[in-house]
Amino acid sequence: MSLSAKVNQSLSCSSVNLVLFEPAEIGRPLARSDPRAGHLLRVLRRREGDTFDAGLVNGPRGKGTLAAIGPEALTLAFAWDTVPPPLDPITLLIGLPRPQTARDILRDATSLGVAAMHFVTTEKGEPSYGLSTLWTGNEWRRHLTSGAAQAFSTRLPAVMHGHSLLEAIGSLPDRAIRIALDHYEASEALARCHLLDAFGEASRPELVLAFGPERGWSQAERAVLRGAGFVLAQLGSRVLRTETAVVAAVVLVKARLGLM
Amino acid sequence: MSLSAKVNQSLSCSSVNLVLFEPAEIGRPLARSDPRAGHLLRVLRRREGDTFDAGLVNGPRGKGTLAAIGPEALTLAFAWDTVPPPLDPITLLIGLPRPQTARDILRDATSLGVAAMHFVTTEKGEPSYGLSTLWTGNEWRRHLTSGAAQAFSTRLPAVMHGHSLLEAIGSLPDRAIRIALDHYEASEALARCHLLDAFGEASRPELVLAFGPERGWSQAERAVLRGAGFVLAQLGSRVLRTETAVVAAVVLVKARLGLM
Repeated sequence: MSLSAKVNQSLSCSSVNLVLFEPAEIGRPLARSDPRAGHLLRVLRRREGDTFDAGLVNGPRGKGTLAAIGPEALTLAFAWDTVPPPLDPITLLIGLPRPQTARDILRDATSLGVAAMHFVTTEKGEPSYGLSTLWTGNEWRRHLTSGAAQAFSTRLPAVMHGHSLLEAIGSLPDRAIRIALDHYEASEALARCHLLDAFGEASRPELVLAFGPERGWSQAERAVLRGAGFVLAQLGSRVLRTETAVVAAVVLVKARLGLM
Repeated sequence: MSLSAKVNQSLSCSSVNLVLFEPAEIGRPLARSDPRAGHLLRVLRRREGDTFDAGLVNGPRGKGTLAAIGPEALTLAFAWDTVPPPLDPITLLIGLPRPQTARDILRDATSLGVAAMHFVTTEKGEPSYGLSTLWTGNEWRRHLTSGAAQAFSTRLPAVMHGHSLLEAIGSLPDRAIRIALDHYEASEALARCHLLDAFGEASRPELVLAFGPERGWSQAERAVLRGAGFVLAQLGSRVLRTETAVVAAVVLVKARLGLM
């Protein structure tokens, strides 16, 4: 089985809570080879005339109707209803991880509702990870729709990749609260980080959470981060996998900020 | 490639922070076919005389020395040092999930330091998941050692499987604080759950967190949980994958209890 077939299978086998469509797909037949067609017919077991929970990417949710099942394609109709709540004002800055880790982060951080993710090159990172088909094609975007569908949302975060840590820091909003996770030099626990107390008082509060690559930040990068206003924080003495640390950190700050 | 070969490969490729040994393995040669031998020679690139971070399962951490590299096996020596901190007094009760989800939970919940996990049968669960080689052999235990090694710990949680929800509830300590995650009927957010305020006042505080299967709790199970003193709580309007919800919930309660 090819990698992309595996990925398709894994997307179509997961329990999709919402079936998402791009605006350009509305009004067109859905090919039966599309994983969503298989999901509607075989997992949700919908027949002609049945409805299902549907969403328009970055638009409203509502009901889809399986109007007709043809030999090559399905005919669908839609009735849109509510617009999902906005994404949380949280930006992740992540040292480019191995592709399988990046897939998990793309999906789970989207489910958790972050507004943006920058995957950046770092001194101790592995540049070859950037050559993965995850990044050279459009595969990365499929993990966003999977994560949004799981969370019953239509909203996809902005994703940037291929820039350096320095370039990404330069693109951050001035006023954002900035925290970098660091297992080695941080003294403050993220769960009790003093910067989060000030969040609610900002007029348009924004938060940036930075995660180093597998082998950590270099000393030069720590200096750059501190110089750019980042406070170093940690998640306790237990070292977590990067994908687990991202979920843990986002959940901790969402809880502190009253967003969860 | 067989499933177990795939699992071995995935364990040996992950970045192991501590190399763990069972007490019965000490003093014996380590076969070169063992994934840990490959990890020492090819990932950590250790040569004769080099040391590495080692741990004894449920015992101390320390330094291993690669005393000799033979054609069939490695000769190792150990000098034990510190005993890792105890596990957190948190028990998970989880409606049996699909095997790949269970693998992630076994590893990540061990990394996070929970003391026990019960995987239970439920009314809306899929009984065939229990027939997976994950549970019929010893594979489940390998994910515990992987999770402990990742967290730089030697301690493995107690794991029970094959019992019903009712049997598992009957085995819980009387005094434990009990919270069941429920996306549908919970009114209280886990992040602000009132039960957690009382935790520090208990003389030997313990916490149980229960997670339903993919399709949720049945009404009869909700009645059983409430009758057994469980409060229903939720993780917000975004529906998370079970493995992500477990990490999120454990992190939230650890932070509230000052354990993170």
